[in-house]
Amino acid sequence: MTIENVKAVLFDVFGTVVDWRSNVAREAGFFLNSHGIKLADPARFADAWRRRYSPSMEEVRSGRRPFTRLDVLHRENLMAILPDFGIDQAAISAAEIDDLNHVWHRLDPWPDVITGLVRLKSSHIIAPLSNGNVSLMIDMAKRAGLPWDAILGAEVAQAYKPTPEAYVRTADILGLRPEQICMVAAHNSDLAAARSCGFRTAFVPRPHEHGPGQTTDLVAEQDWDIVAPDFIALASALQNSLVI
Amino acid sequence: MTIENVKAVLFDVFGTVVDWRSNVAREAGFFLNSHGIKLADPARFADAWRRRYSPSMEEVRSGRRPFTRLDVLHRENLMAILPDFGIDQAAISAAEIDDLNHVWHRLDPWPDVITGLVRLKSSHIIAPLSNGNVSLMIDMAKRAGLPWDAILGAEVAQAYKPTPEAYVRTADILGLRPEQICMVAAHNSDLAAARSCGFRTAFVPRPHEHGPGQTTDLVAEQDWDIVAPDFIALASALQNSLVI
Repeated sequence: MTIENVKAVLFDVFGTVVDWRSNVAREAGFFLNSHGIKLADPARFADAWRRRYSPSMEEVRSGRRPFTRLDVLHRENLMAILPDFGIDQAAISAAEIDDLNHVWHRLDPWPDVITGLVRLKSSHIIAPLSNGNVSLMIDMAKRAGLPWDAILGAEVAQAYKPTPEAYVRTADILGLRPEQICMVAAHNSDLAAARSCGFRTAFVPRPHEHGPGQTTDLVAEQDWDIVAPDFIALASALQNSLVI
Repeated sequence: MTIENVKAVLFDVFGTVVDWRSNVAREAGFFLNSHGIKLADPARFADAWRRRYSPSMEEVRSGRRPFTRLDVLHRENLMAILPDFGIDQAAISAAEIDDLNHVWHRLDPWPDVITGLVRLKSSHIIAPLSNGNVSLMIDMAKRAGLPWDAILGAEVAQAYKPTPEAYVRTADILGLRPEQICMVAAHNSDLAAARSCGFRTAFVPRPHEHGPGQTTDLVAEQDWDIVAPDFIALASALQNSLVI
């Protein structure tokens, strides 16, 4: 095993820790209904919102825009899609937009997450390494009971994944060598970027992140150090590897 | 009460949360003994080390030096005082220096701290706003069981207290207005700086931080929003102020 010296386990969050699509769809459905719009499948709204996620971060990653926290990007992206769903932007109050935008602070974890994290916390430093901003991660953790040791990620590193700086600066802040850190994600691309920075890698597939018809990230596309079906198995794999 | 809208309670750590002097003195005593040096009161070593703390940060605060995390400053300060205690710097291995330097990661909280923080966590965001770096705060918290919601402070803000940016940037990261944050410290100067940035303030005296002969910070020097004898009383004061 190459993971016996891992001291910190860092997690992708949207999709890996929490089920963003179901939560956003549900709250979007309430929002649309309250404005007289019936959508047969409000997950379409969640998907449309999320489709703008990576392009909006790409403005920052490319250097065309200074680092801007995700709450701001999410809000811009929300405003941009409203007309596509028949909503007049000017008819919605800022407070209502802010409230819907904060649905990303209120996402539920997958059922195995809390048990796995509580176990892992006894042996390792655990923290998010997410593109979500600090206050989003704090609100989510307090609501869901995620027992993080710290909130790390894009805002602290001032760089969005998969930019190498997001991983490298996080390792530096932790005072650890890259090989002492294991990145956990449901996305092969995140793990590939982490591996290229020297991190250990663990793939936990979330085959329903994008709904019943998901076609991506169903299987490990490289020989990641760990492939586990859920966070409970992940905790066992990391803890069994420890040199006692 | 002016504190009913407080959402986050942020803590000074060295002296306020943990008893740095006793811990550093004890480990310094072992270190000196192992090198054949008997010090009647190893707290003298702790005091000498700590005396260089603020001047070393002043290099950063003044802009003469780029932001440098506290672990690095602590190590430089440790090397600087060794000759004063009869230790030849060149005779000590880097590993031994690193280990003694990490005593700041292994400090014990005052007896009321865990109970108070666990209670406060149920109603407020709680986090350190310390000049200690992130990995120091993580190690300390895991060892002592400090239930922080996040690790904030100088390294995340890239500014040392009492520079205003240390407080203002932390509020911005939390997405809160300054008056929604209460700074807790055993040091009047820290609270004065926080108040000047619009924070609410709570003074918890630690009359033995500097040993039995302490002459500073024994009493509140301004009308802080809360003055509490310990963290348990602090939690009561903040929770009783909540609008239910």
